[in-house]
Amino acid sequence: MSRWNNALQTSAEIQKLKRDAVLREAGRAFSERGYHSTSLDDVAKALGVSKGTLYNYVKDKQEILWEFHRLAGEIAEDSFSSARAQGGSGAEMLRNTLKHFIYGLTQELGACRVLMEFNALRPEDRLKASKLRDAFEQAYVELIELGIADGSLRAVDPKLAIFTFMGAINWVPRWYSPSGRLTPEYIAETMTDLLLRGLVRKPAAPGRRAAARKQAVKDRR
Amino acid sequence: MSRWNNALQTSAEIQKLKRDAVLREAGRAFSERGYHSTSLDDVAKALGVSKGTLYNYVKDKQEILWEFHRLAGEIAEDSFSSARAQGGSGAEMLRNTLKHFIYGLTQELGACRVLMEFNALRPEDRLKASKLRDAFEQAYVELIELGIADGSLRAVDPKLAIFTFMGAINWVPRWYSPSGRLTPEYIAETMTDLLLRGLVRKPAAPGRRAAARKQAVKDRR
Repeated sequence: MSRWNNALQTSAEIQKLKRDAVLREAGRAFSERGYHSTSLDDVAKALGVSKGTLYNYVKDKQEILWEFHRLAGEIAEDSFSSARAQGGSGAEMLRNTLKHFIYGLTQELGACRVLMEFNALRPEDRLKASKLRDAFEQAYVELIELGIADGSLRAVDPKLAIFTFMGAINWVPRWYSPSGRLTPEYIAETMTDLLLRGLVRKPAAPGRRAAARKQAVKDRR
Repeated sequence: MSRWNNALQTSAEIQKLKRDAVLREAGRAFSERGYHSTSLDDVAKALGVSKGTLYNYVKDKQEILWEFHRLAGEIAEDSFSSARAQGGSGAEMLRNTLKHFIYGLTQELGACRVLMEFNALRPEDRLKASKLRDAFEQAYVELIELGIADGSLRAVDPKLAIFTFMGAINWVPRWYSPSGRLTPEYIAETMTDLLLRGLVRKPAAPGRRAAARKQAVKDRR
């Protein structure tokens, strides 16, 4: 955003930027010390503000936790809609969805280990999170079924494939470090490729397509 | 174990069986309600014993949590040693290790969601768990490097491959249900196959080997 735009920021925009900073710092503190052993006091200290100031942005720890889950849901939603807009075979849409999701997660929530905390959510948020998760699982299953139907993916139990993929991806915040040697781009590209190779019928490289088509015919026998 | 053997059980063996029952029930209770919101009282109630009786077997919740991590470590250890004993290429040893580990985890700790709880461990147990994890990661990296060197695996960043695989596998207790439609055998076989296909140079089926060898030659160019 340019300086000129900055000058035009409304107080609502400034409030949002400050809230985002609070969320980021809370994510960092929770990830380092664990959600259950980090208090809002610790977060306030890390930000160098009073707990009272913090309450202008968030009500409690559980609200912060839900925000992370909500954001992960938004990234997933974006991944599906952009992949659908690009189109292609089931395999291509699955590849684009996964790549977009891994990249977004790494960028936005990369080191946010508390995404694993599910039971600590408020009951109503847990319900929302679990509905989100079920909806995305279903959307993934449909992509895989589409890929199996159009011949771009092998016939593998779609649920097991998705659980496998989601596990690999949800684990990223456990080991990713923004200061580490692996960039979000590399992780998204390489991990998607690794996972997709397990499932595709045709290898991605154009030079291999003829051999793959022959193999697909053999596989169908 | 036969009746005759049962009759010969020492009191130490009986103590161990009872302790295992306590651990199993605790795992179930923690997994259903979350580690942090389940007390030893809840575990005692679920077992139909007094809290005093429970203290004969475990000192506190953290001891139970460490037992789960220790058991996961034992399963991993067994997986590596049995795969090494069987021998073969890097890809084959990696396949056998993963299959054994997934099967063992599903059988022994399948629905044990608290394996994700790392920060809740006692500091000294956390250190042990993290050393175990590092050692296994290193052992996996060496298997992959072996596979790349012997030509059975593609040259992929070994760390990223292992993080991907470990994420997929460590996620299993989050969705696995012993009463569900997928058996431990099916999960171990299918998930290993899905993950390995992303990494192998030669497909496993014998009929495809010639094509794969040709492809491997092309890949090396």
